[in-house]
Amino acid sequence: MKVKFKNSIHNELISIFGKDNVLIDQHQLYVYSHDCSNIRSKNIKKPFAVVFPIDVYQVQKLVLLANEKHLSLVARGIGTNHVGSCVCLNDSSIIISFIKMDKIIKINPINLTVEVEPGVVVENLQKELGKQDLFFPPDPSNQKVSLIGGAIAQSAGGPRGFKYGTVKDYVLNLEVVLPNGEIIETGKNCHKNVEGYNLTQLFVGSEGTLGVITKATLKVIPQSEANNVILIYFETIDEAANAVCSIISHHIMPSVLELMDNNTLKTIEKFKPSGLKTQYEACLLLEVDGFASTIAQQCETVKTLCYNNNAKDVIISQNDEEKEKIWIARRSSFACCTKLAPNVIADDFVVSREFIPLAVKTIQNICKKHGIIVCIMGHIGDGNIHPNYALDLNDENEMNRFNACRSEIIDEIIKLKGSITGEHGIGFEKAKYIEKSIGSVNIQLMKSIKNIIDPKNIMNPNKIFK
Amino acid sequence: MKVKFKNSIHNELISIFGKDNVLIDQHQLYVYSHDCSNIRSKNIKKPFAVVFPIDVYQVQKLVLLANEKHLSLVARGIGTNHVGSCVCLNDSSIIISFIKMDKIIKINPINLTVEVEPGVVVENLQKELGKQDLFFPPDPSNQKVSLIGGAIAQSAGGPRGFKYGTVKDYVLNLEVVLPNGEIIETGKNCHKNVEGYNLTQLFVGSEGTLGVITKATLKVIPQSEANNVILIYFETIDEAANAVCSIISHHIMPSVLELMDNNTLKTIEKFKPSGLKTQYEACLLLEVDGFASTIAQQCETVKTLCYNNNAKDVIISQNDEEKEKIWIARRSSFACCTKLAPNVIADDFVVSREFIPLAVKTIQNICKKHGIIVCIMGHIGDGNIHPNYALDLNDENEMNRFNACRSEIIDEIIKLKGSITGEHGIGFEKAKYIEKSIGSVNIQLMKSIKNIIDPKNIMNPNKIFK
Repeated sequence: MKVKFKNSIHNELISIFGKDNVLIDQHQLYVYSHDCSNIRSKNIKKPFAVVFPIDVYQVQKLVLLANEKHLSLVARGIGTNHVGSCVCLNDSSIIISFIKMDKIIKINPINLTVEVEPGVVVENLQKELGKQDLFFPPDPSNQKVSLIGGAIAQSAGGPRGFKYGTVKDYVLNLEVVLPNGEIIETGKNCHKNVEGYNLTQLFVGSEGTLGVITKATLKVIPQSEANNVILIYFETIDEAANAVCSIISHHIMPSVLELMDNNTLKTIEKFKPSGLKTQYEACLLLEVDGFASTIAQQCETVKTLCYNNNAKDVIISQNDEEKEKIWIARRSSFACCTKLAPNVIADDFVVSREFIPLAVKTIQNICKKHGIIVCIMGHIGDGNIHPNYALDLNDENEMNRFNACRSEIIDEIIKLKGSITGEHGIGFEKAKYIEKSIGSVNIQLMKSIKNIIDPKNIMNPNKIFK
Repeated sequence: MKVKFKNSIHNELISIFGKDNVLIDQHQLYVYSHDCSNIRSKNIKKPFAVVFPIDVYQVQKLVLLANEKHLSLVARGIGTNHVGSCVCLNDSSIIISFIKMDKIIKINPINLTVEVEPGVVVENLQKELGKQDLFFPPDPSNQKVSLIGGAIAQSAGGPRGFKYGTVKDYVLNLEVVLPNGEIIETGKNCHKNVEGYNLTQLFVGSEGTLGVITKATLKVIPQSEANNVILIYFETIDEAANAVCSIISHHIMPSVLELMDNNTLKTIEKFKPSGLKTQYEACLLLEVDGFASTIAQQCETVKTLCYNNNAKDVIISQNDEEKEKIWIARRSSFACCTKLAPNVIADDFVVSREFIPLAVKTIQNICKKHGIIVCIMGHIGDGNIHPNYALDLNDENEMNRFNACRSEIIDEIIKLKGSITGEHGIGFEKAKYIEKSIGSVNIQLMKSIKNIIDPKNIMNPNKIFK
């Protein structure tokens, strides 16, 4: 980009956002050339600028400017995504950081809805709702820092998906700035709405490629009265999977149904000793919720059914402290993996639930064959498996092995008719695999939708598909 | 259409579907020029033919033929929709009836999914699932006859939406024949999947305008252990609405939360005496479900909270017979309305829940002003209101009053930022109102999507928008 042109754009940005809300310092921009995907690619560029809008009209002005000057716009929450959805792929990219649009606009306890700006931290939202006995179930594991706008753009999930669904199931309406600068609402702040095509769900999970989300109305539900957490150990993944089926067929819908493999247990114990039993192949972390009067009975039923399925140990939490300890262990699993090697790549697959044991063993075997360290955890209720690969991005030999390993795993997941992403998204990182998974006709269909909505390709270009 | 051309198309249809699966008899075709919308319009035509495919490949051949010969294709379930979604608007329309593609292909109790052909009757699906203790919660009130394909195409709802969501929340994957004849799957048979844009939800509720659905994979859940039904009477709609808020804020999520107004109560009692108390302005029909051990307590809590909100009578069902009697009364409400006048038009609005009392009273007042008989019922948990207007379509004066009345009601719903349809769809009948409700930019966006997927406009043309 020419210096003169660059300067004129800077000035325009400052006139829209004010000096304090435009970053152009090269060291600061460097930070924004990364997200949590750990991708290293020569295609990733520093953004040309980062802007911090405070309202939708500033976003609109920016979109009109981008339109006129052929700039790329990359909306960004806090950058916790794992697939490079918010890195920049050309040097005329402007990152829109939503950290200053962080208002919980209105909690409506009668309609069971909340209106939020995209910059609200998910955990803050949950805390504020909790004060009114309300509950927003989606719980991306990075909720302490991740922003709701990012969670919507990525269609994030988390451990409560089995019983409560994921972010997409809670979005009723979005305010979006379209690539042509028009501001629309995609739906209504109503619990049911079938006025034409479901534009809301078109934008949810579109990773910023179709427009910029500037406000959302989310459905919330009443908090359940009580819950409890149970840890269950098995000698095989198959037994854990069988136990899950047995529990569900006894009318119990656990609010959390997590699986950790032996490597995950060992890694947590190594770096954050939590009393987990590392001698077993599989551990289920299960939460039941509902009326207080049912919790003890649910736990007892789970215990019996698990022992019937060869569980080796079933530990029912006796108090909040014990529950919290288990959750801290589970939530630290990713952080612990990062201590196994200089880097960790977090992966994300989904299979039909009967294939969980096969998929887990297949991933373990392929990783073993290629000499890649992997800790597998997942939301077993959803069939959602997260292998965390611990490796050194600077070790060329290891990376070659990893790429072969990854590719082989993806082939196996596709053979099982699984999904190559259940909640992380495609972004830049998985764009090379998506066609293999969903086929060229679907890709063409998606591209034609992208093209009709964003003909100049200014919205997060070259993400999802190339 | 010229006779020679007509004959040649007939022959082509017979060669695809076989003689027994093509209807061309004019008297039989007449039946297919109607659905449950009660619309009379000179724009509605008899179909040119009705075909009964038995597999996706026949549908594909038909789509290719339609493409080549510029024919219109109108997919049809059993024709119970209320908005003219499956009537034909030109004389080169072919209706695709799915009654012969009625297989429940596979119930997968481990993955909690079921694969179905579009012609499966919703109630049959529920019965088959029930045999395995599984549950498909969406319950369009016409489930005894309506087909799952229609329920998906219309994004149908029903009384269990508040707790369990609607059809859209249970569709994981669709097989669709695109307007160009390509057969795609929109997703995967997995519970989570964010591989690019949400094509599944683009087709759900698109009323056959984007492609023909030939198979669906639906999510199911375990049946709840027990339930009970409660009838509660109030002197005002406001009190009923307040009671609902109070119940929800006490951690109770009723599986059904229905409202009937005084006219509905009286009309049911007149034509199907069921012991309903007609002296009250509002009646809640509430179902609680969950573990058997919780049902009595839930009912008692509901009772107390309702009396705290000035309920005049609370009747908790004492056995299955009583429950069934209440349900029969509720389900007969539409049929009873049809006895008030030669015709009934069933309407469908949604508002944010705090506006329910206002919306109900507004509708009652506007109908009174225009001399239109209305019975109002609705899924109060969702803010979903169904006015049933009883009138005589042949009475020109009444129809003029009705049209003015309807238009005024729609204006008021839009002022309340409500939706003009929560579960019936737009079809042909509400196409004249949709732009007023969602704005021209959204319409343009939807039209551009339609145009890019169906450039020859062969799929159910002139539905949703003109």
